[in-house]
Amino acid sequence: MNFNITILGCGAATPTLRRNPTSQVVSVHDKLFLVDCAEGTQLQLRRHKVKFQKINHVFISHLHGDHYLGLVGLISSMHLLGRTKDLHIHGPTGLERLIQLNLELSDTFLNFKWIFHPTNPKEKELLFEDNTLEVYSIPLKHRIDCTGFIFIEKPRKPKVSKEMIEEYNLSIIQIRDLKNLVDVKLENGEILSAEKATIASRTPRMYAFCSDTAYLPGLVEHIENANLLYHESTFTEEHAARAKATFHSTASQAATIASLANVKQLILGHYSSRYTSLSDFLEQAQPIFSNVILAQDGMVVEIP
Amino acid sequence: MNFNITILGCGAATPTLRRNPTSQVVSVHDKLFLVDCAEGTQLQLRRHKVKFQKINHVFISHLHGDHYLGLVGLISSMHLLGRTKDLHIHGPTGLERLIQLNLELSDTFLNFKWIFHPTNPKEKELLFEDNTLEVYSIPLKHRIDCTGFIFIEKPRKPKVSKEMIEEYNLSIIQIRDLKNLVDVKLENGEILSAEKATIASRTPRMYAFCSDTAYLPGLVEHIENANLLYHESTFTEEHAARAKATFHSTASQAATIASLANVKQLILGHYSSRYTSLSDFLEQAQPIFSNVILAQDGMVVEIP
Repeated sequence: MNFNITILGCGAATPTLRRNPTSQVVSVHDKLFLVDCAEGTQLQLRRHKVKFQKINHVFISHLHGDHYLGLVGLISSMHLLGRTKDLHIHGPTGLERLIQLNLELSDTFLNFKWIFHPTNPKEKELLFEDNTLEVYSIPLKHRIDCTGFIFIEKPRKPKVSKEMIEEYNLSIIQIRDLKNLVDVKLENGEILSAEKATIASRTPRMYAFCSDTAYLPGLVEHIENANLLYHESTFTEEHAARAKATFHSTASQAATIASLANVKQLILGHYSSRYTSLSDFLEQAQPIFSNVILAQDGMVVEIP
Repeated sequence: MNFNITILGCGAATPTLRRNPTSQVVSVHDKLFLVDCAEGTQLQLRRHKVKFQKINHVFISHLHGDHYLGLVGLISSMHLLGRTKDLHIHGPTGLERLIQLNLELSDTFLNFKWIFHPTNPKEKELLFEDNTLEVYSIPLKHRIDCTGFIFIEKPRKPKVSKEMIEEYNLSIIQIRDLKNLVDVKLENGEILSAEKATIASRTPRMYAFCSDTAYLPGLVEHIENANLLYHESTFTEEHAARAKATFHSTASQAATIASLANVKQLILGHYSSRYTSLSDFLEQAQPIFSNVILAQDGMVVEIP
């Protein structure tokens, strides 16, 4: 069951030829989710060969241009290229009005339905759920309302080992009971304990996307033990005052959050366009949290 | 005195890695004007090394996404990169509301003033004028209100030849009169005719941008004798019915307009993304109007 993210853009507010602004595709169990959609995202999707008609849910963190200005263009291309499937858009309330106004002014009637789901900037909320996955929004701390997103697999029932099934000639009902951790009585009157008969399934994997945000220790409770954390680091320590003033984080603040939350891996991103070299980000984060990597446009990060 | 255009995008509705959608920079006498501003335009400006803070006037033809979706991002980058100069935006009425809503939702207060000038989709109107140049909008025929733009140099007064000035020891007042085509009386009582003393200035140059439009013979009166005509040709003859249904033109219709208007050169553009090769466009236009070229992203066309 795959679980990976593709970085489509990891730059901050002003797009440059080096880095697109924020957007990424989260692929879980072969379902594609788009997180943020800066200007140019549809071209990045083409460039990195993501089949964008497979995206059914878009999550927009906040309404700064570098996180949503590519959305209307993407919707329009989905329409022109023949989409008929529903598209769910999750984001701050105002986004609905913005999309509507664009469609109205261009006199566009989409061939597909778009369903808008306003996000809650105040508390954690479930946005999406299916058999195997849940997606939540969590409040971040930014100049305007902003949410992060958490992708977490649902716990899977344990498996009953093949050997046990054969050895005790287990029935379907017995297997179901064991999966539900209920002990069963065998034909010979013995009790087979669920603990003995089952193999625990893999721990559910979790990805947390946190951009844009000031340093926010309150995040930790929501992202604890995540396999992967994308945390914005717009600035290096040199510009810590600027980070504070603009409700952004430094690389070492991102690393501190990763460490406090005991995540497995941290990706830094949302670098200000003032930096041509990113080595300072790594140097400042690594002493605090060692398993850290730098996002780059086009990078695919697997959650094993 | 330079007069050239830089094609930033010559594709139609859906951006592809081959072609950006519509935008171009018109450079006249070292002033830069932006015509249309599709998604990705700010990156195209960077890519082709156009100093975008030098742009003081933006002209938007109509509110289909492939002509304006890059504007809010460009405005935002101008702001973030320290602009303080006014920016004049000319376009369909609804555009003002759209920009306002984006700025309001992102809680952005620009460091510069933007002044919106609604265009008139019904008749030719003067949009901009200085000592040497005039810019007009002209109505096009599209699915929604749409205007073309005409850039035309002002006629310059003739020059008085240096030889005449020396030979007759002409005064400033006499030179001024001659420039205004008034004959002057010399010290010896003779009359020096303006016709004899002056050299006519170059005929004013004209560039006409016509995208998007159905075949529209009414255009001809506005663009007659233009040095350069950019006329959309979304489709080849093969898709003439589709051109008609969507209020676009074919290459041969664009060539017919160029021929009727007796322009000096025609550039085709706004090609539908369905075409990978553009040779049919040229083959279909050339028999009707021979001095035709195909727009390509990054191309600079000089008006000599």
